[in-house]
Amino acid sequence: MIPNLARLSERARTSGDRPALFVAGQMIDYRELARRVDETERGLGALGVASGDVVAVLLENGLAFAEILHAIAQRGAILLPLNARLTPRELAFQLEESGASILIHGAGPLADLAAESAALIDASQTLDRFEVNSEKAPALAAVAAARSEAPTEHPRIDPARTLALIYTSGTTGSPKGALLSHRNLFWNAIGSAMNLGVTPEDRWLVCMPLFHVGGLSILLRAALYGSAAILHERFDPERVNRALDDEEVTLVSWVPTMLERVLAARGGRRAPPSLRCVLLGGGPAPSGLIESARSQGFPIAATYGLTEAASQVATQVPTLAEPEGASGLRPIFGTQLDTIDDDGKSVRGRPGEILVRGPTVMEGYWNRREESERALRGGWLHTGDIGVLDAVGALEVLERRCDLIISGGENIYPSEIERVLLEHPAVIEAAVGGRADADYGRRPIAWLVATPGQALDSAEIRRFCVDRLAGYKIPVEFTVVDSLPRTATGKLRREQIT
Amino acid sequence: MIPNLARLSERARTSGDRPALFVAGQMIDYRELARRVDETERGLGALGVASGDVVAVLLENGLAFAEILHAIAQRGAILLPLNARLTPRELAFQLEESGASILIHGAGPLADLAAESAALIDASQTLDRFEVNSEKAPALAAVAAARSEAPTEHPRIDPARTLALIYTSGTTGSPKGALLSHRNLFWNAIGSAMNLGVTPEDRWLVCMPLFHVGGLSILLRAALYGSAAILHERFDPERVNRALDDEEVTLVSWVPTMLERVLAARGGRRAPPSLRCVLLGGGPAPSGLIESARSQGFPIAATYGLTEAASQVATQVPTLAEPEGASGLRPIFGTQLDTIDDDGKSVRGRPGEILVRGPTVMEGYWNRREESERALRGGWLHTGDIGVLDAVGALEVLERRCDLIISGGENIYPSEIERVLLEHPAVIEAAVGGRADADYGRRPIAWLVATPGQALDSAEIRRFCVDRLAGYKIPVEFTVVDSLPRTATGKLRREQIT
Repeated sequence: MIPNLARLSERARTSGDRPALFVAGQMIDYRELARRVDETERGLGALGVASGDVVAVLLENGLAFAEILHAIAQRGAILLPLNARLTPRELAFQLEESGASILIHGAGPLADLAAESAALIDASQTLDRFEVNSEKAPALAAVAAARSEAPTEHPRIDPARTLALIYTSGTTGSPKGALLSHRNLFWNAIGSAMNLGVTPEDRWLVCMPLFHVGGLSILLRAALYGSAAILHERFDPERVNRALDDEEVTLVSWVPTMLERVLAARGGRRAPPSLRCVLLGGGPAPSGLIESARSQGFPIAATYGLTEAASQVATQVPTLAEPEGASGLRPIFGTQLDTIDDDGKSVRGRPGEILVRGPTVMEGYWNRREESERALRGGWLHTGDIGVLDAVGALEVLERRCDLIISGGENIYPSEIERVLLEHPAVIEAAVGGRADADYGRRPIAWLVATPGQALDSAEIRRFCVDRLAGYKIPVEFTVVDSLPRTATGKLRREQIT
Repeated sequence: MIPNLARLSERARTSGDRPALFVAGQMIDYRELARRVDETERGLGALGVASGDVVAVLLENGLAFAEILHAIAQRGAILLPLNARLTPRELAFQLEESGASILIHGAGPLADLAAESAALIDASQTLDRFEVNSEKAPALAAVAAARSEAPTEHPRIDPARTLALIYTSGTTGSPKGALLSHRNLFWNAIGSAMNLGVTPEDRWLVCMPLFHVGGLSILLRAALYGSAAILHERFDPERVNRALDDEEVTLVSWVPTMLERVLAARGGRRAPPSLRCVLLGGGPAPSGLIESARSQGFPIAATYGLTEAASQVATQVPTLAEPEGASGLRPIFGTQLDTIDDDGKSVRGRPGEILVRGPTVMEGYWNRREESERALRGGWLHTGDIGVLDAVGALEVLERRCDLIISGGENIYPSEIERVLLEHPAVIEAAVGGRADADYGRRPIAWLVATPGQALDSAEIRRFCVDRLAGYKIPVEFTVVDSLPRTATGKLRREQIT
């Protein structure tokens, strides 16, 4: 019964002449976007993409990404958004495990990355690659025209169908694909609107990558609301400030590092009056930063979200002043929160593991029945994060799961890095921790124990990591130690690795 | 998968300290409202109301109405809101046909009306009456306390369940109950929000009766959005103006007569800056009125709605200027429109019957399979109203179904009045039409043909109507004629009765 989430024809009918996207100096209205999406969908059809197929997308933010996202949704296919900062090895893992049938990628360095990634996967896998030059979108239209498929029909998509398969290290540290359905993303949009509000004049500035759920979900929300997104190819604080001042931005999503850099580039100028909400996610923000932003007129709404719950889980009401009394985050409408102690008992007013239930929670991880059941046991998503729920139901997030390092808005899972380090013959033990960093929040560092009789060289280890790990995951410091800090029972004391 | 529409405990959890209602000089926050609704629901339980039971409510606008509405929703029972302007005879029909098991009514004149109505229904019918003094709400709490039912559980309500049974004369002129489900009213709230926008600071002024879907749906929307409603017991233009000026009203729903009276009482003062939308429904408004309101700063959003579609079907974006180009109404999100000619073929750009499809369209009429199938044939609600859909999908409503008279926001169906007139022995033929009226839009008048050999006396006929028809339905003029204007085939030419 969900009315056509992400079916652009619906929006084109009700809001055809209203702006959908501002991108690369163009304004695209809903009618034009729907036309382009129909063409792109015919292109996907001509390339053999059927309902239920996984379409991997390696593109920078841009019109082509938006077109392909909606075309995939409309076709009932599944989007696998690839993080352009990953290494070919990391991408190959996602391509192979997801069973993607086609990889749509950009030109230049993205084409090279796509080629290298595809070359690494099992030769038995059929993976067509298709290059889209995002400056010449709609790029798939040419394919459609060439193969002249019939006009696009818009069959009803079952809301339980998967719309996106987004890799995250999840709650156990090894990358796995969270399955987000049309329904999950629909309820994220509704829940967000009921907390943050929505107006027909809204313009949501997107300067975070669309390959993360935080960016992706903004485009889907805008299409549902009939409001506009302003899409930046990449984060550039100067350009963000120009947009804030000149383009009637009403909402923006940032991670703390971005907010800090925007403020620094702004030189004390106040926020524009049009700006009604800064959705600040991606890890804890220093309270000084939030205070300083609010004092300059930025209405901050701190949020806590997860890929597994289609982004926002609990969010503040946007405000210029630290709210009196309950300053915590309120679950978005439709979402329920609980906190449990080590025995699994529900607790209030003291720290516990944060559990999430509601229509935004994923169906599970792709092809990982056991890990899915563990993450979703008892009907609740077990986040591994620690928080306090107060008497009125507001959440304070104390720490993301102890092994998670959030660095400039990217999630880094130490166990993934440790596995790579242990592949090196000179490393017998490895532990990765997060060191506080003024710009990034935290950055990864590694402690290593050398294999007896082998010499450990930091530069060599760093080189070893470079083609195995995205740059932001590579530890900024390697320290050789005699032994790792452990508890009496041998459990790593990761909090000491700083 | 609808998250708990009208389950106040949900809102109390996420927005407990935010205002839910401003009524009779009090502010009730969501936590307090949820507490009162729980008590009221226990009261309903103590009175024997079970899931699926029809609860008739004859109350003026007030806190008690809001409490009972939400308590009924929470219990999975069905609300039958009674129009306090109807006669006991008209009410008895609804009570009997709906099979209501309990009638909750106000004190004073409402108690008398309730007693007279109940006395008229079939003695075999069990109908408990329960008086609620709305000044002492929550009135049912006392019942609950006295009978000490256990604390309220909140089982999940299937969204397909009926939430309200609202009598309307529908498309054939005889009163019948439109069945509106939780899902219908939920999607009305979502669709409305996607068109009009919603903000956490919204305050929606309700000065139209809650027994109509237009008023009722505002309370349900507010609970979903977590925003506030300002509830007036009755429409008083002076009080409305005070609220506009002093109470940060952001939205208001009016019919044209109300707008006109508010403007007259306002004496040229501009609309307050907080007001972001005037939802103007209940029949066509004179364009001079809309222009004049806009020039005084009232952002008008004309709307077209029906009880059978849970209120709004198509609505303008709120605006201070007549929109350029397409000035028509846009279907609310999730709703589809069509117009058909006399042969049932879809037409564009010229007048046709307006059809409506989508998640807000009722399941059918209570206990009227044949009329339901006719109204909903082919999966579309056939409204009987005439409109033009333009190329971009905007709707201009030309006229409500030719036999509908909208008078001061109330729908009047000539056939219902004609049936009453024909019961009088001196009347052999009767026809009712709508005469243009500066204050009410239109008012009913009657043309009568006398039974041969009998004298027809207007005063006598008027007296005959008084206990059979609500005051607003009684023709303001009776004219005795020799014959009624008819087409060659004998069909009444109602447009000539003016």
